[in-house]
Amino acid sequence: MKIYVTRKAHFAAAHRLYNPNFSEQKNNEIFGLCNNPNFHGHNYNLEVTVIGEPDPETGYVIDLKKLKEIVAKNVLNLVDHKNLNLEVEFLRGINPTAENICVAIWNQLRDKISNGSLYSIKLYESERNFIEYKGE
Amino acid sequence: MKIYVTRKAHFAAAHRLYNPNFSEQKNNEIFGLCNNPNFHGHNYNLEVTVIGEPDPETGYVIDLKKLKEIVAKNVLNLVDHKNLNLEVEFLRGINPTAENICVAIWNQLRDKISNGSLYSIKLYESERNFIEYKGE
Amino acid sequence: MKIYVTRKAHFAAAHRLYNPNFSEQKNNEIFGLCNNPNFHGHNYNLEVTVIGEPDPETGYVIDLKKLKEIVAKNVLNLVDHKNLNLEVEFLRGINPTAENICVAIWNQLRDKISNGSLYSIKLYESERNFIEYKGE
Amino acid sequence: MKIYVTRKAHFAAAHRLYNPNFSEQKNNEIFGLCNNPNFHGHNYNLEVTVIGEPDPETGYVIDLKKLKEIVAKNVLNLVDHKNLNLEVEFLRGINPTAENICVAIWNQLRDKISNGSLYSIKLYESERNFIEYKGE
Amino acid sequence: MKIYVTRKAHFAAAHRLYNPNFSEQKNNEIFGLCNNPNFHGHNYNLEVTVIGEPDPETGYVIDLKKLKEIVAKNVLNLVDHKNLNLEVEFLRGINPTAENICVAIWNQLRDKISNGSLYSIKLYESERNFIEYKGE
Amino acid sequence: MKIYVTRKAHFAAAHRLYNPNFSEQKNNEIFGLCNNPNFHGHNYNLEVTVIGEPDPETGYVIDLKKLKEIVAKNVLNLVDHKNLNLEVEFLRGINPTAENICVAIWNQLRDKISNGSLYSIKLYESERNFIEYKGE
Repeated sequence: MKIYVTRKAHFAAAHRLYNPNFSEQKNNEIFGLCNNPNFHGHNYNLEVTVIGEPDPETGYVIDLKKLKEIVAKNVLNLVDHKNLNLEVEFLRGINPTAENICVAIWNQLRDKISNGSLYSIKLYESERNFIEYKGE
Repeated sequence: MKIYVTRKAHFAAAHRLYNPNFSEQKNNEIFGLCNNPNFHGHNYNLEVTVIGEPDPETGYVIDLKKLKEIVAKNVLNLVDHKNLNLEVEFLRGINPTAENICVAIWNQLRDKISNGSLYSIKLYESERNFIEYKGE
Repeated sequence: MKIYVTRKAHFAAAHRLYNPNFSEQKNNEIFGLCNNPNFHGHNYNLEVTVIGEPDPETGYVIDLKKLKEIVAKNVLNLVDHKNLNLEVEFLRGINPTAENICVAIWNQLRDKISNGSLYSIKLYESERNFIEYKGE
Repeated sequence: MKIYVTRKAHFAAAHRLYNPNFSEQKNNEIFGLCNNPNFHGHNYNLEVTVIGEPDPETGYVIDLKKLKEIVAKNVLNLVDHKNLNLEVEFLRGINPTAENICVAIWNQLRDKISNGSLYSIKLYESERNFIEYKGE
Repeated sequence: MKIYVTRKAHFAAAHRLYNPNFSEQKNNEIFGLCNNPNFHGHNYNLEVTVIGEPDPETGYVIDLKKLKEIVAKNVLNLVDHKNLNLEVEFLRGINPTAENICVAIWNQLRDKISNGSLYSIKLYESERNFIEYKGE
Repeated sequence: MKIYVTRKAHFAAAHRLYNPNFSEQKNNEIFGLCNNPNFHGHNYNLEVTVIGEPDPETGYVIDLKKLKEIVAKNVLNLVDHKNLNLEVEFLRGINPTAENICVAIWNQLRDKISNGSLYSIKLYESERNFIEYKGE
């Protein structure tokens, strides 16, 4: 029996989009306003989905309080109220597009799920734009 | 041609999490506040997804008014404003975690869909926690 | 200068509507499903609004982290995952309609706001039903 | 590596549900209020999901500004503030049920995605009713 | 004691904006796409707020089930799945801008509230545009 | 006749909270994580409310397309994807707390409303924290 369990979380952070191998002109052409060297920011919404079988004794795939703590320890505490270009170890050297952040959060969490397995990371950069990654 | 048709619904109910085979201490350790013997409650949001091919004459996979009635008759009328531990036949003997309620609603609906087939049950226990089950 | 500062919060609780001075029949007529003696429950959303002038040095009317803590200490910790009829001191003897809970939360908070003054309590019992009280 | 990138969009339109091969009585039986010959309308919400691999140089599967423009040019500009029965070339001869509109939008967009491939079209006719199509 | 009680409701309708005293050119200049003679439509969200004192015996300002019925009988049943220009008695001769619909709903409801008094009508024409009227 | 017309808008920006007259220690004590010298950011949601009487010929207090343009020209274009501490003329010398940004947007818009008068500015810094200012 496969059950999907999701916890939503939230963080606020600054970033800019920028490739150091591009000329300034090319960075502006490709990333536009997102390339602002003074940074801009977002309220990111994150959905972490775990797949697994409910424990017959507890009825839980994973206790959602525990999942909340795993996400806080391994993601939120490292990115909330931070600058994603300058201050986050697990994003070092990565251009923080929503796609790249989403994959980096997957890599950050895939070995930390205590019960069941990580199934999907969904990252909303705004109400209208979001990314999903399932480790494939 | 496979089309996914979803109807959202809502119910309010009381429950507690509790395993009669556990000691009181173990129930408290595992279920914490959710084990309150006086119960607590939630506004549950439910998404029922049916998969099928649109009828070429009507353009419907299933008339959403009909799906609304099927969900009301087989789920909402039995759980809304009820105590999920004490009063719901289809949850008898089941510890009402979101996982277990979600699977029980799947079992309740899988043979009742008049057109197309049941594809997924998604159950939101709160804005931040939700469960999905696809019958696998 | 009058600024309105709002913090949203959330709690889950069980309740039933019931007047001990009414006959069983009258309780059923007036409160219907809400009179279920086994209780039902809700995810309540709460908006606490404080009015005041921003401190010229900090730019805050009240630090929203502080307001969050005041609401947690004086309301959320007392009602979350509780039975509103049986376990909440500040609701003792009160029929827990959304109107009555809203006024009781106002009374609970009006002297606890460290900066500015309490302006409004808004309580959502469901997405479609909500109550507001401004102390008048 | 497979990444799913979604852009939400919105349009407002009038329509009626009607099959010219049905008698008036049968149209009324099957489509009820939706068969009103004077039309009714909706705020439709649309989610367009593209699947692909992020470009290693830009970190984008597809620039979301570009996806926004593709959706505007090929869908929104043709349906927003329009009558879906009378004025939309890509819906000509199609009974505009949510299912049929969803498939038509898929057909309209599948060859227009400049980077990655169209993965899914999700169409909300109301907050409680929505359709998804993945081209299968 | 003044308590504000709100019920949210929803209807879907077609309309066009048009002043018969304007030339066709002036209608187009002022109303743009909204003047489409084939109509367009919206999912309207409506918030009806009643002000009053809770009945000391019931704890209700007005039973929200009763308010729901009053709104259904006097508004929703008359406008849902209708054409607001052609079919709604209480909008006859009125150009159905959100402002005008909002005032007309106020007039429709102000004498129908069984307990307490009508305080405000809020009408959302889209997620981003809304109108409020308080009878002043 | 007084009608309230609201337009919602959205911008993404970076900021830090900081008072140059405070010591570094005091800035950290008061502003905590919000004082990060590398900045953090938010998706801000803005609600601009205009009060006025509908024009009897158009049925509009103010054309919402016009209000949208006024908000874009005088606010959004100046703050979206910007750093609020470094790049926004109308916030120069202002510590960008939500309270201070809200008042600055009021000052920016109060003389720019072409029809009716500015009534309120509501600024959401996150889903759970928001500020309102009515010019009093």
